[in-house]
Amino acid sequence: MDIAVVGAGSIGMLMGSYLSESGLDVTMIVRSDEQKERINEEGICRVHEDGTGSVVTVSAVTGLTEAATAKLVVVAVKYSDLKTVLNEFREKEIRTPLLFIQNGIGHLNLVEECEFPHVAFATVEHGALKSDHRTVHHNGVGNLTIGERFGDKNKFNIIEKASNDRFPVIRHPNGEHILLRKVLINCLINPLTTILGITNGELLTNPYGHQLMKELYEELMQAFTEMRKELPFTAVESVCRNTARNHSSMLMDRLAKRPMEIETIVSATIQKAQLTQRELPLLKNYERILLAFDEKVKC
Amino acid sequence: MDIAVVGAGSIGMLMGSYLSESGLDVTMIVRSDEQKERINEEGICRVHEDGTGSVVTVSAVTGLTEAATAKLVVVAVKYSDLKTVLNEFREKEIRTPLLFIQNGIGHLNLVEECEFPHVAFATVEHGALKSDHRTVHHNGVGNLTIGERFGDKNKFNIIEKASNDRFPVIRHPNGEHILLRKVLINCLINPLTTILGITNGELLTNPYGHQLMKELYEELMQAFTEMRKELPFTAVESVCRNTARNHSSMLMDRLAKRPMEIETIVSATIQKAQLTQRELPLLKNYERILLAFDEKVKC
Repeated sequence: MDIAVVGAGSIGMLMGSYLSESGLDVTMIVRSDEQKERINEEGICRVHEDGTGSVVTVSAVTGLTEAATAKLVVVAVKYSDLKTVLNEFREKEIRTPLLFIQNGIGHLNLVEECEFPHVAFATVEHGALKSDHRTVHHNGVGNLTIGERFGDKNKFNIIEKASNDRFPVIRHPNGEHILLRKVLINCLINPLTTILGITNGELLTNPYGHQLMKELYEELMQAFTEMRKELPFTAVESVCRNTARNHSSMLMDRLAKRPMEIETIVSATIQKAQLTQRELPLLKNYERILLAFDEKVKC
Repeated sequence: MDIAVVGAGSIGMLMGSYLSESGLDVTMIVRSDEQKERINEEGICRVHEDGTGSVVTVSAVTGLTEAATAKLVVVAVKYSDLKTVLNEFREKEIRTPLLFIQNGIGHLNLVEECEFPHVAFATVEHGALKSDHRTVHHNGVGNLTIGERFGDKNKFNIIEKASNDRFPVIRHPNGEHILLRKVLINCLINPLTTILGITNGELLTNPYGHQLMKELYEELMQAFTEMRKELPFTAVESVCRNTARNHSSMLMDRLAKRPMEIETIVSATIQKAQLTQRELPLLKNYERILLAFDEKVKC
């Protein structure tokens, strides 16, 4: 087997579908017998925005044993399930190269503690929505950017075979930096748009919103000086401009009265900074405000 | 003439009505000829919550000249009109004792620059609503607390003659402290309830809201150390408890999409702290968030 994909949520299924379609031998590692049976019997159905799509035959199993025999394991579970998966990998002494696909940077420290021999991180810009156990809607093409962290970077080349126009795979020399870059953008856009109740574009047009974003940027760059070159303020402004009419994911959660992704985005960044004795007082203040919002939802 | 009341808004009319009723010779200094005529012809009509009330005969004039001949001038204009009044007082070289009744502390520095010989500040806890040029509704009895700032404190005794159950007058030895105490309470309750969208009581029950209030309290007390004894944190909590179901005035303005009183409450406190080289980074951050809200209203 070439690749095991752990987790068959929207991103896991999207990955499995494209990787398998490119000729790689893929096994989906899923949680429920029900999903295992659906995927084994009917394959993964991928639907594109233009109405076209593919049904790709993929095998599915439960349990993490198969991860040991793959050439590469893609870990596409949510942050909240990651600890369980990592513990089992450690117990099974798995030495397969591991590619982690999670939001935020909550997984950064978790993964690094485990001392697996070959590790890479990836960020995903695809829009993907799971509609049932075997169907994923591919609503927006973006890059899968892979950055190595430990071990032999060539172990991850296999995934590049699947790269095509709908599923572009990009390589980056530093796994930690691509995650940090993404989470810093999230820290700069999500809390402020959520607290102010504005679109991403209004962070540019509202002079006080823009000032708040600039101040937060300076605070973050004091803590993560190595990122200033990789993420100039103009790049953050470009993201706001390109998504001007969107509500951030955090604001969407707030408006829908759902709990927000505070932990993996905001709290994890604060903790990451604290590892090198850097304080982020502004971001900490926003974290508390967001926690107060979430507390209100719970009541 | 005993007392001139400058400004015939809700508080000016309430003062004029009670002072005149107690036997003092009161002149209202108003802005428009229309209001002057109404008050001169019909007097001030004061309506209590229980439906009872008084019509009190008072004389009204326009122009500030009469302020020179009074024993005491009560300045009850809004902060935004205060500069004009102060400039005219300076030009006319008025030496009459001046009692200032404004929200916030924006007037503190303005007044102190002018070097009038006898100055006192007051805080008003009355609920009062002006319904036309000569009618004020007295919706809640509270204290009028007078604190001297410069000159002879006995010059202000005259106003105590009017003190009664519906209009209690209290004296305090320090005019600056009573204003600071009130504005600090406002700074602790208004911005946070407005940003979080919660009642005053939820600042006690929402653990993160309570933590934010405590942190802001510590920041303010680092800047205004002299106030810690006069305003312990438990006193702020008591205000929240006593007004638990209320929305703060600032949140009310936000919900009604009206501009909020940011300048006299929040900005003036930041400026006051800066006079002694104290920075208030948390409060500054809240100021920007509130300004961003107001900016949104303008759009």
